[in-house]
Amino acid sequence: MRDVAIIGIGMTDFGELWADSLRDIFVMAALEAMGDAGVDHIDSMYVGSMTPGLFIGQEHLGSMLADYLGQAPVPATRVESACASGGLALRSGFFEVASGMSDIVLCGGVEKMTDVSGAQATYALATAADQDYEAFHGVTFPGLYAMIATAHMHKYGTKREDLAQVAVKNHANGLLNPHAQYRMKVTVDQVIGSVKVADPLNILDCSPITDGAAAVILCPADKVKQFTKKPAVKIAASAHATDTIALHQRKDITWLNSTAVAAAKAYEMAGVKPTDIDFAEVHDCFTIAEICVLEALGAVEKGKGGEATRSGFTARDGKFPVNTSGGLKSKGHPVGATGIAQIHEVVSQLRGEAGERQLGKAKRGLAQNMGGSGGSAVVHILEVL
Amino acid sequence: MRDVAIIGIGMTDFGELWADSLRDIFVMAALEAMGDAGVDHIDSMYVGSMTPGLFIGQEHLGSMLADYLGQAPVPATRVESACASGGLALRSGFFEVASGMSDIVLCGGVEKMTDVSGAQATYALATAADQDYEAFHGVTFPGLYAMIATAHMHKYGTKREDLAQVAVKNHANGLLNPHAQYRMKVTVDQVIGSVKVADPLNILDCSPITDGAAAVILCPADKVKQFTKKPAVKIAASAHATDTIALHQRKDITWLNSTAVAAAKAYEMAGVKPTDIDFAEVHDCFTIAEICVLEALGAVEKGKGGEATRSGFTARDGKFPVNTSGGLKSKGHPVGATGIAQIHEVVSQLRGEAGERQLGKAKRGLAQNMGGSGGSAVVHILEVL
Repeated sequence: MRDVAIIGIGMTDFGELWADSLRDIFVMAALEAMGDAGVDHIDSMYVGSMTPGLFIGQEHLGSMLADYLGQAPVPATRVESACASGGLALRSGFFEVASGMSDIVLCGGVEKMTDVSGAQATYALATAADQDYEAFHGVTFPGLYAMIATAHMHKYGTKREDLAQVAVKNHANGLLNPHAQYRMKVTVDQVIGSVKVADPLNILDCSPITDGAAAVILCPADKVKQFTKKPAVKIAASAHATDTIALHQRKDITWLNSTAVAAAKAYEMAGVKPTDIDFAEVHDCFTIAEICVLEALGAVEKGKGGEATRSGFTARDGKFPVNTSGGLKSKGHPVGATGIAQIHEVVSQLRGEAGERQLGKAKRGLAQNMGGSGGSAVVHILEVL
Repeated sequence: MRDVAIIGIGMTDFGELWADSLRDIFVMAALEAMGDAGVDHIDSMYVGSMTPGLFIGQEHLGSMLADYLGQAPVPATRVESACASGGLALRSGFFEVASGMSDIVLCGGVEKMTDVSGAQATYALATAADQDYEAFHGVTFPGLYAMIATAHMHKYGTKREDLAQVAVKNHANGLLNPHAQYRMKVTVDQVIGSVKVADPLNILDCSPITDGAAAVILCPADKVKQFTKKPAVKIAASAHATDTIALHQRKDITWLNSTAVAAAKAYEMAGVKPTDIDFAEVHDCFTIAEICVLEALGAVEKGKGGEATRSGFTARDGKFPVNTSGGLKSKGHPVGATGIAQIHEVVSQLRGEAGERQLGKAKRGLAQNMGGSGGSAVVHILEVL
């Protein structure tokens, strides 16, 4: 297994991109990444997308996008693990390069969610839950995460304000990200006063419905200089784990075991401890999710995720900045693209290209991408090469 | 890259499996494969499925099936390339074992197609075509393959009877396969007299709507003896290629370029010529497809696919037996499972376990799995180890 570097990144603005089709936005992101990497061809590609069948009536995405990118007949594989599809696309490409099978691999993610009604989007997203035991009975993701939040508040004394503070922090970060969908400050009072979705979660606790695409280019670490003079970033670890997709089958619904297992593997692979990570992009599909993820990553103790947010530990100027991009909450959450957009932010920070939101210390960053209510998780650790 | 062997196979009967859910049938096939291999755990798994979102309202399939199989938190990846999803699952698992990352990998395929109406199934399948330029305008797969058939007849003089002969041959084979959905003989007259679907294709030129699952277990070739005493089968080659998914964008719609490219790569990887292959399972979703595939594989010259079928070249007792399992036509076509079911047949033949349809000479077999009207193709070559 050889070392693998990321040499190019690209992404579209995230938002309601009604003027562009799925294939358009994917190719925009892919061409930007190829341009950034200095390559005009790829050996192979992976596309993460959750459910283009339900959103735009299109499967067979790998071939369609390889062709539209002018790269057919290269192998093109679509991977899916609900909202972790993007992270999984990176992991699949990572292993293709690490194994020596290919040199230049594009890993992209895309979702076009605003071409259907809100009700249709909610149905489509609920297919990431257990259809037979959850979705069929009417529960959708706000309801599932509301149960997690309620349990976390009951078990650990997490406060309503702690949840709101996640949104406040991530919107403050997203304000500085030109690609973000909702570039606006919000306050704790605004979050708590916003319309109820599923108690205790309000609309400002929820990530939005978004169109968007993101892409990165991988190559063997020892060939970076052939392509680019920019600082290259190494993939120090890539790990993936699963859990029950239905909440009721878990011992403790406040504990995201797939994230914990994937993180433990990733730390081992990179030879680091949680305290060696300078910053992270994590899957804040709902405010409570970020709190539980901090705990599963071992960044804070069990039950201390709310306190960590309240105290400023995860703020941009805190000890462990989380979601400097704005996260899913402010940047937007085109589900299949999210995992790659996280990588876009980590690479931007490691290269010192994050503009107004650039961190002072950014040598090693982590990205955690999650499917459903934690039925799958993919964790990557990136370092300046 | 190390050699990879298949040490276990399993599949459900193919048909209208109304009493069992998707997770049930997948686990039946997976447990059969694990039992056949002599393993009680796996390191990782891949699932090929085309569109469970549209068929049963369920995405996030990797995690759901890993859990139901009792194997969570192992990594579980769903891959999709329309009807080539099963072949792609095998290829993904092959590279995971070849790279040294994992030892025991399960590659499965599944589709549950009969829980929706025929019209809904037709819509779901049409998402493998180009939605914007084909499906949206009303053309579905029988229509697309009918255009290919018409062009082939015009260009090469292929006869209506030649198409029918593919169905006659494959049903004769399927009659001997206990897993096949339609175990019945058909005659040329019956095919030509059956109800018209899209001229020149009749209902007996089309593969059916099917529920089913299939799975295989991979391990490094040098570890086979630790698990099983059965004859092991080596994956001598694995190749994948793409093409435009829309027919109108191709130079010649009778030429399946993704199959030709993937086959050329596979022959090179295995170090063999087309004439070194003893038998093949190919993607006969429509009768014309088998004819075009024979040509793209180099088994016959361009334009000679119809004649090859008529002459008995591809019959079970012919020089190059094709679709001894009954093919998609008679065995059934649960789209995501098909690519793995092809591997099930090739392994059964290579092990000498194919019962009444066992071939005399079966040392090296090929499996060709195709997405849509050829927008993607995956080709594997298997040999007795």
